[in-house]
Amino acid sequence: MPARSLLADLTWYDFVDCVKSDPIIILPVGSVEQHGPHLPLSTDTLLPQALAEAVAERMGGLVAPPIAYGYKSQPKTGGGNHFPGTVSLDGEVLVGLVRNVINELARHGLRKIVLFDGHMENQWFLVEAADLSLRDQKMFRNTDLRIVKLGYWDFISKTTEELLFPDGSPSWELEHAAVMETSLMLHIRPDLVRRELIPNDPPAKFPPFDIYPFDTRPIPATGVLSPAASASAEKGAAVWTQVVADITEALSKAFDKQTSNV
Amino acid sequence: MPARSLLADLTWYDFVDCVKSDPIIILPVGSVEQHGPHLPLSTDTLLPQALAEAVAERMGGLVAPPIAYGYKSQPKTGGGNHFPGTVSLDGEVLVGLVRNVINELARHGLRKIVLFDGHMENQWFLVEAADLSLRDQKMFRNTDLRIVKLGYWDFISKTTEELLFPDGSPSWELEHAAVMETSLMLHIRPDLVRRELIPNDPPAKFPPFDIYPFDTRPIPATGVLSPAASASAEKGAAVWTQVVADITEALSKAFDKQTSNV
Amino acid sequence: MPARSLLADLTWYDFVDCVKSDPIIILPVGSVEQHGPHLPLSTDTLLPQALAEAVAERMGGLVAPPIAYGYKSQPKTGGGNHFPGTVSLDGEVLVGLVRNVINELARHGLRKIVLFDGHMENQWFLVEAADLSLRDQKMFRNTDLRIVKLGYWDFISKTTEELLFPDGSPSWELEHAAVMETSLMLHIRPDLVRRELIPNDPPAKFPPFDIYPFDTRPIPATGVLSPAASASAEKGAAVWTQVVADITEALSKAFDKQTSNV
Amino acid sequence: MPARSLLADLTWYDFVDCVKSDPIIILPVGSVEQHGPHLPLSTDTLLPQALAEAVAERMGGLVAPPIAYGYKSQPKTGGGNHFPGTVSLDGEVLVGLVRNVINELARHGLRKIVLFDGHMENQWFLVEAADLSLRDQKMFRNTDLRIVKLGYWDFISKTTEELLFPDGSPSWELEHAAVMETSLMLHIRPDLVRRELIPNDPPAKFPPFDIYPFDTRPIPATGVLSPAASASAEKGAAVWTQVVADITEALSKAFDKQTSNV
Amino acid sequence: MPARSLLADLTWYDFVDCVKSDPIIILPVGSVEQHGPHLPLSTDTLLPQALAEAVAERMGGLVAPPIAYGYKSQPKTGGGNHFPGTVSLDGEVLVGLVRNVINELARHGLRKIVLFDGHMENQWFLVEAADLSLRDQKMFRNTDLRIVKLGYWDFISKTTEELLFPDGSPSWELEHAAVMETSLMLHIRPDLVRRELIPNDPPAKFPPFDIYPFDTRPIPATGVLSPAASASAEKGAAVWTQVVADITEALSKAFDKQTSNV
Amino acid sequence: MPARSLLADLTWYDFVDCVKSDPIIILPVGSVEQHGPHLPLSTDTLLPQALAEAVAERMGGLVAPPIAYGYKSQPKTGGGNHFPGTVSLDGEVLVGLVRNVINELARHGLRKIVLFDGHMENQWFLVEAADLSLRDQKMFRNTDLRIVKLGYWDFISKTTEELLFPDGSPSWELEHAAVMETSLMLHIRPDLVRRELIPNDPPAKFPPFDIYPFDTRPIPATGVLSPAASASAEKGAAVWTQVVADITEALSKAFDKQTSNV
Repeated sequence: MPARSLLADLTWYDFVDCVKSDPIIILPVGSVEQHGPHLPLSTDTLLPQALAEAVAERMGGLVAPPIAYGYKSQPKTGGGNHFPGTVSLDGEVLVGLVRNVINELARHGLRKIVLFDGHMENQWFLVEAADLSLRDQKMFRNTDLRIVKLGYWDFISKTTEELLFPDGSPSWELEHAAVMETSLMLHIRPDLVRRELIPNDPPAKFPPFDIYPFDTRPIPATGVLSPAASASAEKGAAVWTQVVADITEALSKAFDKQTSNV
Repeated sequence: MPARSLLADLTWYDFVDCVKSDPIIILPVGSVEQHGPHLPLSTDTLLPQALAEAVAERMGGLVAPPIAYGYKSQPKTGGGNHFPGTVSLDGEVLVGLVRNVINELARHGLRKIVLFDGHMENQWFLVEAADLSLRDQKMFRNTDLRIVKLGYWDFISKTTEELLFPDGSPSWELEHAAVMETSLMLHIRPDLVRRELIPNDPPAKFPPFDIYPFDTRPIPATGVLSPAASASAEKGAAVWTQVVADITEALSKAFDKQTSNV
Repeated sequence: MPARSLLADLTWYDFVDCVKSDPIIILPVGSVEQHGPHLPLSTDTLLPQALAEAVAERMGGLVAPPIAYGYKSQPKTGGGNHFPGTVSLDGEVLVGLVRNVINELARHGLRKIVLFDGHMENQWFLVEAADLSLRDQKMFRNTDLRIVKLGYWDFISKTTEELLFPDGSPSWELEHAAVMETSLMLHIRPDLVRRELIPNDPPAKFPPFDIYPFDTRPIPATGVLSPAASASAEKGAAVWTQVVADITEALSKAFDKQTSNV
Repeated sequence: MPARSLLADLTWYDFVDCVKSDPIIILPVGSVEQHGPHLPLSTDTLLPQALAEAVAERMGGLVAPPIAYGYKSQPKTGGGNHFPGTVSLDGEVLVGLVRNVINELARHGLRKIVLFDGHMENQWFLVEAADLSLRDQKMFRNTDLRIVKLGYWDFISKTTEELLFPDGSPSWELEHAAVMETSLMLHIRPDLVRRELIPNDPPAKFPPFDIYPFDTRPIPATGVLSPAASASAEKGAAVWTQVVADITEALSKAFDKQTSNV
Repeated sequence: MPARSLLADLTWYDFVDCVKSDPIIILPVGSVEQHGPHLPLSTDTLLPQALAEAVAERMGGLVAPPIAYGYKSQPKTGGGNHFPGTVSLDGEVLVGLVRNVINELARHGLRKIVLFDGHMENQWFLVEAADLSLRDQKMFRNTDLRIVKLGYWDFISKTTEELLFPDGSPSWELEHAAVMETSLMLHIRPDLVRRELIPNDPPAKFPPFDIYPFDTRPIPATGVLSPAASASAEKGAAVWTQVVADITEALSKAFDKQTSNV
Repeated sequence: MPARSLLADLTWYDFVDCVKSDPIIILPVGSVEQHGPHLPLSTDTLLPQALAEAVAERMGGLVAPPIAYGYKSQPKTGGGNHFPGTVSLDGEVLVGLVRNVINELARHGLRKIVLFDGHMENQWFLVEAADLSLRDQKMFRNTDLRIVKLGYWDFISKTTEELLFPDGSPSWELEHAAVMETSLMLHIRPDLVRRELIPNDPPAKFPPFDIYPFDTRPIPATGVLSPAASASAEKGAAVWTQVVADITEALSKAFDKQTSNV
């Protein structure tokens, strides 16, 4: 029997059963974006998809098919949209897509939706999609819907951070295809990581503004924004375990009427 | 090493290599739609995805991450959007999404794009996306782009049809979660088929018009529009082999400057 | 006194009277599209307009001014949008237009709306317009609206088909400016048919996919997709009589609370 | 043979011939709007359509099928959108529709387009459509297009005005279904005028602002904004003759490279 | 303490206090548009802003931050959008902006909104914004909202007109950067008026139609459409005093349940 | 004579002069958003407007009228859109507005545009506006345009930070109406600050996710996210001086062909 947490694998009879338990449903939102010479273009989709499945399994929840294309990559967070292979959406299209999916899930009686982001650049468009779908639902007089939006990286604890960066210099702002993402990929999909190509260049240095068209000079040629050589499957496993546990706990509380006021 | 035909699995270095050969790139477009008691909601995505991979492999081409959500299911072709679990997009959103992806692929120098449809209801919105992205490219003075739009079912030959329907009564108009789709799923993902639940009800009978909101009376309760009991993995394999070969051949000719005038 | 079935000809005092009877109102949706050397560009508007008037008259209904521009002509169904004189709309505009008209008719208390299509390419955009206007009405808490969408050709009976194609080889898929449309035009507007120019070329042969920009080679130079020489006013009269009767009957039932569950 | 000035009546072969002469093409833009107890809802479409045909005939030009639905009726210019039978478009839809039609005509090589307005409320949306289609054409590097937008009433001369209002009190601001429109309708379509119902109420008096939702108190119950009893077919004929001549002359000059600098 | 009539200057605590009195709130809508050699680009924003503040002060009302960019300048009303420095919005953007602001004000419980226009070209887009936001509010079941749209120039009385144009020849149609606007600016912001550059050219003469792209020949080189030399601060003061008083009185009545039926 | 840096105050003759020097032009983008009991709703507009004027003056540049309404306030960055007085735009409207203004400035030959943000929530929509207007310009074959997007807070140096937070605990993430903004307002507009109402509550604590509708429990009742009592005009002056100098220098380099590769 297929995994019960994947909406894609359910029949509609299964779905009817599932909805009865008022489950959470998680929508992974990723991208097709360069991740250096060593990670696949779909890194930002694979990671939230895998994490979402782990969380859903623990919570008896569902995972909807991921949004596999994301908002335009920016130099400081993803290297920039000009890198070959990066396939991005206009903000309006991403908003419309997520808004449609939320409204459809709500139509079927789902009331606990999680937008599980794997791509920094998506975040404000997810905020807008959440706001607009709540507005739509209000017009339909549905006031039961709750939407959580999260980036899994925001759940990494101090302890895990120290494990990732034992020399005490985390570089969250430049975490793109770097230690954390590479470690997680080594943990969940080592077959897709080209270990021999992991770059270890120094952190990129950007000015405190953005310029369009991009000034490509401060952008590392590899597209990796900070040194990644210290990545390891073990670090990935540690992040995985901690983050899955903490997201699971946070969502349980967030959607629990008794511990939440929303 | 990952399969070289999946865009998702490539690094951007791989992508740069790939583009040099001027490959075709296939975008599977599916849906999350009820497919009876026996097939998963993602049937219309799984099938074009798998077929596209087989075709791409034969042609040295690429497959982009699929569009996993499609246009609203209609009674006569998919049972209707009211079935639990069916998650659909507005036409405008689907058009915008495919238009964005085409334009991005064209930006990276890809010139041979295939919209590989697995869901009848998508078709006119794919036409519109193709037309609008060609208009966009024209504004950018890119006149090299060629887009093929196809539904894999349109490639099933007379011979294969006779094999699928030995009693001589094909019911293409009501092929939804029926003999053809069930056979293909038995061939490629038998783990996702609930054989014991395959319905065998008589073909649905619809009036020669459509009514909104749906008149649910002519719609079979299972969501399966014609009898499916005669489906088999063998039939699926036959469809698979013939269709993969013929699509491969057709695309080779369609994008070949020497055999095509476009 | 003007015909009472044309909304255009009514005064608003007449309209107030009319609405009291809870009439159906038919919106013909056509196109400005090449129809070969012998038929006018407005063939797809003239035919549904005339048929709609006949049906409305029999039902005490109304006909709204037609949508005279339609979706982009495609090679397999209309020759293609590149033919001189074909003036088409983007999908979004056609959807918005029909959605607006439906919502306005509903605002005035009309509850039985028929989208009467004369142009194959319009169909999915009419579906979308119907869906979106029902969504709008739901937001206004109007749940009384019923919308029927039809293509008049879908009502042609087996008997009439045999009359149209006595040699037993109907070619519905390639019926564009061919036997059926030419016959109907000879019946209702012979003054607009150039009999001497009716082509009789063999049926067009298309590959099982679509390519953009169009491959113009399989498209007949005349824009007529199958032989039309056997068209006649008599055949047109036969189609007319049967189709008007059957559409009238179908609509009567479709909007009758006693025979319909919607 | 059909009138050569109606695009709708041409075959595409005719159209090819026509375009060679670089003709003007006129798009009448009207409305479905209440016009009192005595005039039909389509008055604002019938009048520009008829005038456009007369002008086109004199100039060897074409008339495209009219836009039969217009922008929302306002109290001071059309009585207001709340009157039964008034069916209006959102501004965005009207703009999109006219923009599409202009772009399509330009695609076929037409370079002299006239937006011939019959409904005051349309005017700014026609301006926007003209501006946006010129922007589109600029992106396509087509700089040949010229678009004239006119309201036929703006061509009425002082002499004709005195004939219409012999008592010296024209009320152009309140000309809706009043002397001018009623006279023109008596001239071209007397069969559609209910003479016995022509109102003769005093001119409406509105405050110098607009309020939404409408304050219906200042709006005459008939929907006619000024006395119409003095309308006559003779007055209509006079307007017709003068306006057709003057528009013809104005357009000839406007599109003549020798007399125009555009 | 800051002026209590400017929304911008209030804290949210102040705002809470203000709303209790059910105040009117005025949204000035202007433009960045050439106003000849002597007036600043923001004339159409400065004037309604200043007038709105005066009116709001008298009524205990609020003034929202102005919309500082307006619809595209037209030759007959503003010289045309081609003049250097004129920065305009597409109609759709202006409509969306005003619709958003109205809906937000309504969300906070404000029920008396005034769209105070300073730029002729904005007017129909303000109408559309008002209509669409009322539609939105209807979907939210808010039926309390009243929106007044006004152009301050429509309140100028006969007496004031005679004062502005003592020679008896007002030229309202060509009032752009001319006597009235220049006088008002001399009254409220003399520091921004270049008196020595006020043009006094004869009134512009336009044909009774509009052409796109603009025919620039009839447009005065200065961008001022009628002679402005007779402008004076005294005239400006007279307009100011009368218009502020009359708008104040009109709005008091318009929003008073006892004197209004809306 | 008016300040030459304000576009609003220029005549079009002035503008023509200005453009000759190829100046930068700065568009301040703010919001109407609660800023606690002590700061005005327009804080996020006043600050970038004032800073932009100072920078423009030093660079001989221009400042366009500010965008006074911004994207929807979020709990973690602005307290949330539910606070009374907060008036926000949909993302699509903000994008369209900024895109329009950029395109218009580019039409007039300006090539150095700065989006000067005063409201965190605007940032991704400014990114999208910049990207889409560059796309538009590319369609017009204008490749000269450069757009800088900045948030002034990103220019605050380590030294200034230590001055702002002498106890060594900056709380940038919760800087909303807190020490930095209050200090700047005390420096530039002390008349608008209610010193007696400056709150000094402990920093807000938010979970590592966002929930919609908002969970209002972690949001301080005042809307101020971290203690603000240590704000002072002196601190504001220090921020002002340093930031104005550094932004001026950064922009000079960013738009200098010799020091920039863009």
